[in-house]
Parts: sequence; C-alpha cells; structure tokens
Amino acid sequence: MASQKPSAAGGLEYRPVLDQVARAVRDVLGGGRVPDQIPAIADADPRAFGLAIATVEGDVHGVGEWRRRFSIQSISKVFTLALVIEKDGEALWARVGREPSGTPFNSLVQLEYEHGIPRNPFINAGALVVTDRLLTLTGDAYGAVERFLRAECACPEIASDHVVASSEAGHGHRNAALAHFLASYGHLENPVGRVLDHYVRHCAIAMSCAELALAGGFLARHGVRRDGSRLLSRSDAKRINAIMLTCGTYDAAGEFAYRVGVPAKSGVAGGILAIIPGRCSLCVWSPGLDDKGNSIAGIAALDTFTSLTGWSVF
Amino acid sequence: MASQKPSAAGGLEYRPVLDQVARAVRDVLGGGRVPDQIPAIADADPRAFGLAIATVEGDVHGVGEWRRRFSIQSISKVFTLALVIEKDGEALWARVGREPSGTPFNSLVQLEYEHGIPRNPFINAGALVVTDRLLTLTGDAYGAVERFLRAECACPEIASDHVVASSEAGHGHRNAALAHFLASYGHLENPVGRVLDHYVRHCAIAMSCAELALAGGFLARHGVRRDGSRLLSRSDAKRINAIMLTCGTYDAAGEFAYRVGVPAKSGVAGGILAIIPGRCSLCVWSPGLDDKGNSIAGIAALDTFTSLTGWSVF
Amino acid sequence: MASQKPSAAGGLEYRPVLDQVARAVRDVLGGGRVPDQIPAIADADPRAFGLAIATVEGDVHGVGEWRRRFSIQSISKVFTLALVIEKDGEALWARVGREPSGTPFNSLVQLEYEHGIPRNPFINAGALVVTDRLLTLTGDAYGAVERFLRAECACPEIASDHVVASSEAGHGHRNAALAHFLASYGHLENPVGRVLDHYVRHCAIAMSCAELALAGGFLARHGVRRDGSRLLSRSDAKRINAIMLTCGTYDAAGEFAYRVGVPAKSGVAGGILAIIPGRCSLCVWSPGLDDKGNSIAGIAALDTFTSLTGWSVF
Amino acid sequence: MASQKPSAAGGLEYRPVLDQVARAVRDVLGGGRVPDQIPAIADADPRAFGLAIATVEGDVHGVGEWRRRFSIQSISKVFTLALVIEKDGEALWARVGREPSGTPFNSLVQLEYEHGIPRNPFINAGALVVTDRLLTLTGDAYGAVERFLRAECACPEIASDHVVASSEAGHGHRNAALAHFLASYGHLENPVGRVLDHYVRHCAIAMSCAELALAGGFLARHGVRRDGSRLLSRSDAKRINAIMLTCGTYDAAGEFAYRVGVPAKSGVAGGILAIIPGRCSLCVWSPGLDDKGNSIAGIAALDTFTSLTGWSVF
Repeated sequence: MASQKPSAAGGLEYRPVLDQVARAVRDVLGGGRVPDQIPAIADADPRAFGLAIATVEGDVHGVGEWRRRFSIQSISKVFTLALVIEKDGEALWARVGREPSGTPFNSLVQLEYEHGIPRNPFINAGALVVTDRLLTLTGDAYGAVERFLRAECACPEIASDHVVASSEAGHGHRNAALAHFLASYGHLENPVGRVLDHYVRHCAIAMSCAELALAGGFLARHGVRRDGSRLLSRSDAKRINAIMLTCGTYDAAGEFAYRVGVPAKSGVAGGILAIIPGRCSLCVWSPGLDDKGNSIAGIAALDTFTSLTGWSVF
Repeated sequence: MASQKPSAAGGLEYRPVLDQVARAVRDVLGGGRVPDQIPAIADADPRAFGLAIATVEGDVHGVGEWRRRFSIQSISKVFTLALVIEKDGEALWARVGREPSGTPFNSLVQLEYEHGIPRNPFINAGALVVTDRLLTLTGDAYGAVERFLRAECACPEIASDHVVASSEAGHGHRNAALAHFLASYGHLENPVGRVLDHYVRHCAIAMSCAELALAGGFLARHGVRRDGSRLLSRSDAKRINAIMLTCGTYDAAGEFAYRVGVPAKSGVAGGILAIIPGRCSLCVWSPGLDDKGNSIAGIAALDTFTSLTGWSVF
Repeated sequence: MASQKPSAAGGLEYRPVLDQVARAVRDVLGGGRVPDQIPAIADADPRAFGLAIATVEGDVHGVGEWRRRFSIQSISKVFTLALVIEKDGEALWARVGREPSGTPFNSLVQLEYEHGIPRNPFINAGALVVTDRLLTLTGDAYGAVERFLRAECACPEIASDHVVASSEAGHGHRNAALAHFLASYGHLENPVGRVLDHYVRHCAIAMSCAELALAGGFLARHGVRRDGSRLLSRSDAKRINAIMLTCGTYDAAGEFAYRVGVPAKSGVAGGILAIIPGRCSLCVWSPGLDDKGNSIAGIAALDTFTSLTGWSVF
Repeated sequence: MASQKPSAAGGLEYRPVLDQVARAVRDVLGGGRVPDQIPAIADADPRAFGLAIATVEGDVHGVGEWRRRFSIQSISKVFTLALVIEKDGEALWARVGREPSGTPFNSLVQLEYEHGIPRNPFINAGALVVTDRLLTLTGDAYGAVERFLRAECACPEIASDHVVASSEAGHGHRNAALAHFLASYGHLENPVGRVLDHYVRHCAIAMSCAELALAGGFLARHGVRRDGSRLLSRSDAKRINAIMLTCGTYDAAGEFAYRVGVPAKSGVAGGILAIIPGRCSLCVWSPGLDDKGNSIAGIAALDTFTSLTGWSVF
C-alpha cells in the first residue's frame, strides 16, 4: 500500500481502511469468470487486485496493483456521457432513456420492444448512441475522451490499447448487431462503421485505478474539474451520479445499490469506478466477474469500504 | 399553509420553501389521469394537493391539504417490507429480487421469465410475497401494519377504508392473477384468498400527508422509530432507502432518481413518500397521475423542493 | 388388436397397418415424463398405449388399450370450439386470435403483450374464452360438450371424472391466473369461478381412443355428424382442421406438421386426436410426454401411420 | 387473361375461374401499403395484379399482369431451403427450428431468447442461416438458386435485379443486425458480408407470376422437377409444404391457413407462391400489403380461388 501524500482528507485515515479492505477481499480473489469475448483481455490474472481513492482535494491513496493499467471498457461510458451533456445539455434524452434495463447489457430485446430507443446510456446500445452524438458534436469522439482523461489525470500517455481495440473490432458481432439495429431505426447520425470504431477505441483505453479515480473526480466535486473549471452544472453532475446508481452495474444495479449504496460504473475487464459525492472517487480493479458481469472482488471491496466508513448516499 | 411548531429544523426555514413549492405546482394541478381501476377512488379531485414534512426531530410542517386523508395504496409496501426485514432479516431475498423491473408494476411477463421470483418487493407480485411472509410471521399482516402506523403517527384512528378495500377486492383481477401465478410456482405460504385480503386491506389504509411523513420517519432516522427504539439496523434502513430509489416509482425510478434524486415510494391514489436520510421525510399527494402511474404534481413538488434546498443523495 | 367390423374402408387394410404401428412404438414406450400437475392422473402407466381409427363410414378399428378411458384434457377444446362456431359463427374471432403462439400453452406473457387477446383457441387462455362464450350461448358449457360427445359415440355413460376435476380445481393456480388476467381486461362474460368450473369439468371428461376417434369424425366428414346432420359448414370444418394443424400441439405444431402432416390436438394426459380429411379420424393415447407436452409414443404412432399409408394433407 | 395452352388440367376449366378471381379482387386493389424500406421497389403501382397457375402437367394459365416481372424477395427462401435439403438432408435442423415464430419476420427478440437458433427457415434470421449453409455447400449460393430457377422456368434470362440488390445492401441494417447477431453466437460458417451479399441477391431476383408458378412446380409434384428428375424425396417435399403452411406468411400463417388452407410463401414485393399438392402451383402478385406484410389482393385471390375450386389441404 502507498499514498502519494501522507494527509487524511475528510478526517479519515485512509491507510488502515485500505489495508482492511485489501485483507477482506483476499478470500474472494481468483473466483468468478474472466470473460473470453475480447481475446486480448481474456488472459488477465483473476487474482489481480487494485484500489485507489482520489479525494475531492486531489489526494490519491491506493492499495494492491493500483498503478497497473487495465482496459477501462464500459467505464468509458461515464466520460462520453459527461462530454455529451456538457456540449449538448438535455437534447440527448430524446434518443436515450434513463431507466434501468432489466436485461443484460448487450440485449437486443428491449431495444426492439422500445422501437430503437435504448433504455439508458450505459447499456451498449445507449452508449453507441452517446458515442454517435459525441462524434457529431466533436468530429472525433475518441479524441475528445482521450483529451479529457489525459487532462484529469495529468498524464499525457493515456491512450487506447491497439491490440484490445482490434481484437474487439474483429469479434464485436454483438455490438455490430446493436449498431445496425439502431441504424435500421434511423437512430444513428454517423455511419455504423465509424461509430463502432470510436466506440471500440474509447472502450480499449488503458488506465490504472489511480488514474480512473482522478478522472472521475469531477463527479465527486459536483461537476468541477481538477483545474477548478466547471465541466457540468451541479445539477447535471448529480444526475449522472443518479444514472450510475440506477444503471451503472448492468442488471445488478439494484443489488449494488442495496449492498454498497453509492453511484458506480463497472467494466468488463474488472474495473469499477465509484463516487461518494462531496468526498471522493474510488476505482477498484479485479478481473474475476460474477454472472452479471461485475468484478466480484471489486464489489466486495466497495462493500467493505462503505461499511467501514459508513459512507453511503442513503 | 401551516406548521405545528414555528421551528426550523436543520437550519432550514420550511415555510417559505413550502410556499414556493405550492406556487410552483399550481400549473400542473388538474393534469394527468385519475385511475379508474379502483372505483372508490376514481372520483378524486385531480386539483387536490398536499405536502407535509416531518423532520428527524419530529416537527411536522405542511401546505395545501396536508391533513386530508387519502388511500396510501402502494406506499404501504414500504411498511410491510420494513416489518418483514425487522422480523426475518435477509431470508426474504430468497423469494424476491432487488432489481428494478423495467416493466409496469402489475406485469406478469417478468414473473414468468424469472420463474415466479418477483423482481423486487415494490412491484405488486413482490409485495404479495412480502404480505404473505408477514402473514406467516405475525398471523395478521394487516394488523401488524396498522399497529405500526398508528404508533408512528400517534393516531389510533388510522385504519383501512372498507369501501376502498371491498371495491378493490371485487375488481382486483390483476392482483388475483398475480397471486394465483405465484401460487402455481408454490411461492405462497398462505392461501391465495387470505394473502389478497390482507394485501387489499393494507393498501386501502387512509392517511394524510402529515401522518405518512411521520410514519416514514424511521427511514430518515436510519432505522430508529419515533419513540427512540430501533426498528431496523442502520444498514437495513439504508438498504430500504436504496430499494426505494431504484424501484420505488414503478418503471420511472430511473427518471425519478435523475430528476429528484431521493428515495421515494409512490401510490396509485397520488401519494408519494420521500426520504432525505438524516434530515426529514416528506409526503406529497395529488391524484393526477402520469402514464407511469406516479403523481404529476407530486413529482413536480419534490423536484422543486430538492432544487430549492439542494438536498439530494447525490 | 381388434376390429369392430372386418371391412377395409378406403381400400386400406387397417389390421396390418395397426399392427405395424404398435410394433414401431414399442421402443419408445415408457419414455418421457408423466406430468404431475394433476394429481389424479400423475400415476398413469407410462407404458400404456392405445390407438383407434374411425373411418368416415363409421367403422372403428383399434390396437392396444384402445377401449380404456383416459382424461381427454385439452382435446376437449376441439369440441368446445366446434360448438361455439356452430352457434355463433365468426363472432368468436373478435376475442381470440388464430395464430400459433410460439410459447408454452399456459403462458401469460403473450396474453399481456397482446392485451388480453389469446393467440388462439387451443392455448389455455384462448380455451377459457371459448368456454366462457359457450357458457353464455348455452347456459351450460360442460353439459353441451357432454351431450355432443355422448351422441357422437352413441355412449350415454361419457362423463367428467370427478376426482380428476376436483384435483385440477384445487391445483389449477395457473388456469386461475389466466382467467383472472382475462377478467382484468374485461374479456370474460361470466364470473371467473364459473368459467373455471366448466373448463375443468370438460377437460376431465374420460373417454377411450375409440370414443374420441368417433367424436372427431365430423371433422373427417367435412362438418357432418354421425347421424348425417350437419354441425358445421364444409368451410368451417376445414378451418377447424387448419387451426388444429397450426396450433393443436402446443409449441410443437410446426414440428408435428413437418413430421406427421395432419391436423391434430393433443392433451396432457397423453391423448392425441388426429384428422385425415375425407378418410378417417384417429385417436392415440400413451401417457409419457415430451418436453413440449405431447405424447411421445402418440406422435411416433401417428408418424408411422402416415408414413405407411402415405396419408398427409401435403 | 390468357392461357399458354387451351387445355383444362385436372378436369377444371381454369379460364372462368381465373376471370372470377380477377373480378373478385378488383375491390381490394390499391389498398394496403407499398413498403418503403427497399427504395427500388417502393414505387410499385399498388393497383397492379397478376395470377398464374402451373398445373403438375406443366400447363400455365394466367390473368392480369401474369407475365410482368417483380422482385421475388422472401419467396426465394423456398428455393434456398429446397436446395439445402437436397444436398444436406436433415443436418440443417440443428441450426434452424421449424416452429412458427409468433413475431415479425425480422425480429431479433426470439433469436435472443432462443440463443441464436432462428425459429424457422422463413424468418429472415433463419433464411440467413440457410443461405450461409448453401454457400458452404455450393460455394455460390446465389448462383445455385439462379441456375435452379432458370432450369425450372426454361428461361435463361432470370437474374437478380442489380438496382434492387444494391438498394437493399445499402439500407438493410436490420438484416445486417440479424447476421451479426447470428455471428455473435458463432452460428454463421461464412463471413457476415458474404452471407448478406448472396442473401440480398437471391431476394432481388426478378420473376413473373408465370415463372414463379413453374419454379414451384416441384412442390406440387411431390419433389419431382420439370424435367422428371427428382429434387427431393416425396417426404421432404411434403415437409417443405408443411413449413410453408405453418411459417410461410410471417406472423399471419395461422390466419392464412384458416382462410385459404394451402401451403404458401409470401414476399415483401407483393408476391405469394402457393402449392396445391398433386394439382398445381400458383403465383399471385399485387404490391399493396397488409400490416403483417402479405399482399392484400394476393390473399383475397387465393381465398377466392380455393373457395371456387374447393381445393384445400384440409
């Protein structure tokens, strides 16, 4: 375990808490399933684990492999959503809903029943619409995300992993099906291939727990970026947190809210970004997933952390 | 507008806030649809409106028809759930899920796809299972709820409205279908007719905004009842709040979390009970419903209230 | 094997064909599952087998236990449907569709998606609507069916088995759910309990293969009853055959049409009534069911019979 | 009206029957909707109408625009299916079901619920699997269909319409979604783009009613081609007829069987190929479609024809 600064933001001593969390998850490490649909990440070590906390003041504390990079995957959807809302306000909600989906993240069923309007921006269909919109608004959706992440982490090396991106591009038939399905309703503004390309690349960005915790800091700071400038209004930041709580962990969002009680977004490579508004942002990573697609050790770590600190939104 | 006590709990002056809320909802009063499936409440005045706040200290403030009684309907599900968790702990979750449903509150579809396990305790199927369990645990589910509500409001007159209860019993074919469907999976412990009887009666309890706000106070006080005794552990109280946020307003829970950002439970007669943990519980009532079954003026009032106060869980 | 008359209707020698069929099914006897949802028929011998043919001239031939009575169950839906069409013509089709269901026979899902209009008159929901209509038209749906069956078989003892009927009435939560669900749409003309009572009783009628083959003769004779009087127009008889072919064997109608190629209606006690228009009606019985709910030996017998005779509608 | 030969096959005088049919459909011509999803056929005249009959002896009779070519679209699925069964026997059925779908022809819902196994070979997903298999078996699925059709019609000019094919290729996002979805389950043997290319081209083949009636003759002749050689066993020919009856007219197959009572396959450009086993094959064409996607005048014509002749399989 290590801390960039020996301080204790918010009156909490992070070191002993992080140590306790690391001990608590030891038993569940190695469990679960490492997904095989993306060849380049299928060989991750299921016993790997890292956790980092970034306080609203900008301090970062971590335990385990908190500086090792992994594929952020669906966690990138938080950033594309924030950038579209920053540039476009409420207009997005004519094309995407805000309700939990009740079905797996890449299901086509609900999309058909609801005539091509994805239930929320965090299921794959909804995230494709968000990327499509960001493409229209910026001309370079991937580039916009990359620039934002580099700035928030003060790390100019952050980039998409080409091997992961091309292995996804070659195997992503489900996402291609979703994109063509959206296009069949006339719900994409850009060509299917272009939307998929940007989507795959921002999902394949490699970051560490420390970097993701820093990048999510604007949601803990009610919309304010690392440099003090405002990305989102207080109200819009609160709203993205609300969507993370109700929709951020696939079809287990209710369970996650029940057990952990804070906004969070998970990714298929085992990362989870969680927000404790006004206090801190956390990122935990461990590749073994439960059957809903969320990191088993990641959820256990966040559960332990919120139990120890008593921090919950409820 | 009126207040039982001229104090300002939590540093907030409630009077001007309540006045502003009442002015803000004036435009939407009379809109929406008064549901006709329960004859005895089909003739409610769509322009009626009331709002009450109960602080964690026990003060009550109100505006509009905050002392007029209405049928609490599905808001009763919060109390049956709390009583079952108090008596039975986690055992309930083997029979009911905790995920948002993604379908209307009285749908049989998801129940069939998920083999008779209701998605959550607030859709009708789940609430029937909760009532069934409370029946087994107490021998008198309705009586247990009535006793609890009377104590929390210090009002021994609170009771089920016989006219509403019998009009529901006669017209509740959808609930009867759900109960028989659950029984077909062997998922009810008591006879279908008995479960339906207790369910219909606790839904038909008549209470005012003031009384419901008081009755929900234990969720604002992290599990502690009006008399200082503990009903639920802090953790269990937090968890019921989480379920209210993700599942409390039918298929609009995501939208409600996005706009209002606090745990809430709505009822078909136009009431909504909302919790601001650590601060207060609110109850708003207005009979005109949107197409998801939630009170239009009720949501608008809570939206205005949280905007004015900045109180949200996110 | 036995024949009531030594003739060979239609130029076919039935005896050797029946013998061959009986030999062919020997291997599959005892396979499958005897359903346990109706206690009184759960103890049927899975190795039992009977087959009877009634020619359009009225001759009956049989093999195996062709004179032993069993519970006709869903085969009764053919007779309620014919009686309603006789009395009411096309009016029924405003309340029931004519499309294969694509889901199990007692599913509530499609009923909800299609707003209380059952897909066809042979799934349970549709059959409940047919029974409801027959009740309205005759005042005694069960009695009308019983009278018709007694006349066609010239057997005044045919009746409902009280033990089967009451065991179904006590366990039929799924049918009660369907009936209440229909009632919730206002789609039943009679009280739920009354419709269920008549439905359960006509399903519990006990008949032998010989009797059922005779009773189905009007469909082989293009609408003409045993006594030469016309029950249905040629066109209506053809249409009931069409519904049997597309919907008569639950979610396996396509498979049955593919393998056997004649109109048929199966029942959960292992009976199948099949029609070869212009030639004969057959009834086969064996209690072991496949996972779609059709008699395994029954289908094998009909498959063998149509292969040997070359008789198919295609 | 015209006849290629003045004979009257099967004892029926076709001329007066065809004239009567043409008169009977006059009232419904111009009704319905000409689909706009394929730009090149969206401007068809909704009042156009043609009907041709090919007797099993090879005579052809027609009325209206029976020699005008139109896009055969989904009718091509009958020929790809027959060619795969000819070459591969029963193996196909491990990858495609034989049940009516109960949902629109291009739905992804059922495909997801059934894990990538299309319900039948006539919905688009199933037809893509058939084309994929024909590609594997022949190396040139389109060419195999074209060769077969040219031979059966003795018309070497039959070919795909390039304008229709490329307008479909550019707009066929729904089919692309289906193909990628199948590929996501590993259920395609060839690359998605190649399968779609052959599929689109065989759907875009242009033929007249006379030519399609001739091409379907092998199903009326129990598997025997125009030149007397056998394409399919009698049993396999019967089975394709069964699939046409239960699945050939999208989600209206039950209704079509009820009203018309013969195997048929419809296409989105308004054609319907119908088979009367042992007698004749018919093709009718009129572009105005009902809301299930079947030609309104086409169904009316077949309904009238079977009523006048009494020819039905039931």
